[in-house]
Amino acid sequence: MTTAARGRPRDPALDKAIMTAALDSFIEHGIAGMSIEQVAKRAGVGKPTVYRRWSSKEQLVADAIEAFVATGVQWPSRDEIDAVRPQELIRRNIDTAARTAADAMFRALVAQIYGSAVTHPLLMQTYWDHYVGPRRTLAIAMLKRAQSEGSVPPDADLDVLVDMLAGAVTYRVLQPNPPNARQMRRYLESAYRQVGLLP
Amino acid sequence: MTTAARGRPRDPALDKAIMTAALDSFIEHGIAGMSIEQVAKRAGVGKPTVYRRWSSKEQLVADAIEAFVATGVQWPSRDEIDAVRPQELIRRNIDTAARTAADAMFRALVAQIYGSAVTHPLLMQTYWDHYVGPRRTLAIAMLKRAQSEGSVPPDADLDVLVDMLAGAVTYRVLQPNPPNARQMRRYLESAYRQVGLLP
Repeated sequence: MTTAARGRPRDPALDKAIMTAALDSFIEHGIAGMSIEQVAKRAGVGKPTVYRRWSSKEQLVADAIEAFVATGVQWPSRDEIDAVRPQELIRRNIDTAARTAADAMFRALVAQIYGSAVTHPLLMQTYWDHYVGPRRTLAIAMLKRAQSEGSVPPDADLDVLVDMLAGAVTYRVLQPNPPNARQMRRYLESAYRQVGLLP
Repeated sequence: MTTAARGRPRDPALDKAIMTAALDSFIEHGIAGMSIEQVAKRAGVGKPTVYRRWSSKEQLVADAIEAFVATGVQWPSRDEIDAVRPQELIRRNIDTAARTAADAMFRALVAQIYGSAVTHPLLMQTYWDHYVGPRRTLAIAMLKRAQSEGSVPPDADLDVLVDMLAGAVTYRVLQPNPPNARQMRRYLESAYRQVGLLP
């Protein structure tokens, strides 16, 4: 949650119902085409119930996205990154990553987030600060370790490398004829191999 | 043009005015939030004038995007790719590529195209068939030549490599705090270097 509860104790089940409705509206209509009113109706609550919790549709959608993606891929912790070799970490996580990337709802969600990047920058900013940023820090820690082990070149620009990996997946997923989980797994293997994260 | 003129001779100035209005509407509102009616009003013409030329807003926007991007980066021809070394071709084109990628209108356009990928697949399909596809074929020809010269590894997956380059740029451009042309140039250099297209 990025917005503190105002007034009364939070009801987690109600929060969840509102966020689910918000995510569905966002995926169907995009941020420009949705409203708090529409979300309230969909969740079967009054508008004030939503506004007590979230001050804007951007904040609400950002929280809904965060709650949704938190249920997906488990990222390795900082401790795991320090303890386990990068290639082994990739091997452990590649199946889940491929399934998530090939998921139809993930695809629809990514499309709408990207679509709102310029017209509704607050949404991308919140998504970036709360979701992408922390995972990016972990990915860079993993690439640094791979650099110290010699599988990633010492002069590689790690920020660009992370963009190349995350960007390729996003780009591939939004192309016509998106891959299924099996194809996505092979795709991820090629991409990881290219940057030195798989042999 | 993907749609043949119906009925009367085309007036290129009128076509252009309609496509400019369509592109502006698309960038502001996205494909879901725009209509042929809105475009006609913006261009100062009647709806039938638009419908005589384009049967749907998706076709109109796809043509408008194509006309817009055609005025941007000049891609090397197949002959040039055969005649000039890849790294030299990159050097010749990197400034224009960086300026285009850092352009605010390009950014807004890319966001909306991505945003419509799932809800309006025809638009992405048309953009893909007419714009991305042919350029992708050229990029792969260039990477094949780089492979034969030894700067790109012989076992690299060229489809994934193209996605990593194009995907990184798209991904970077849509992040909060997008780069200016000078920063984009450095970014492109890093990405090209990573895949072996610059030393």
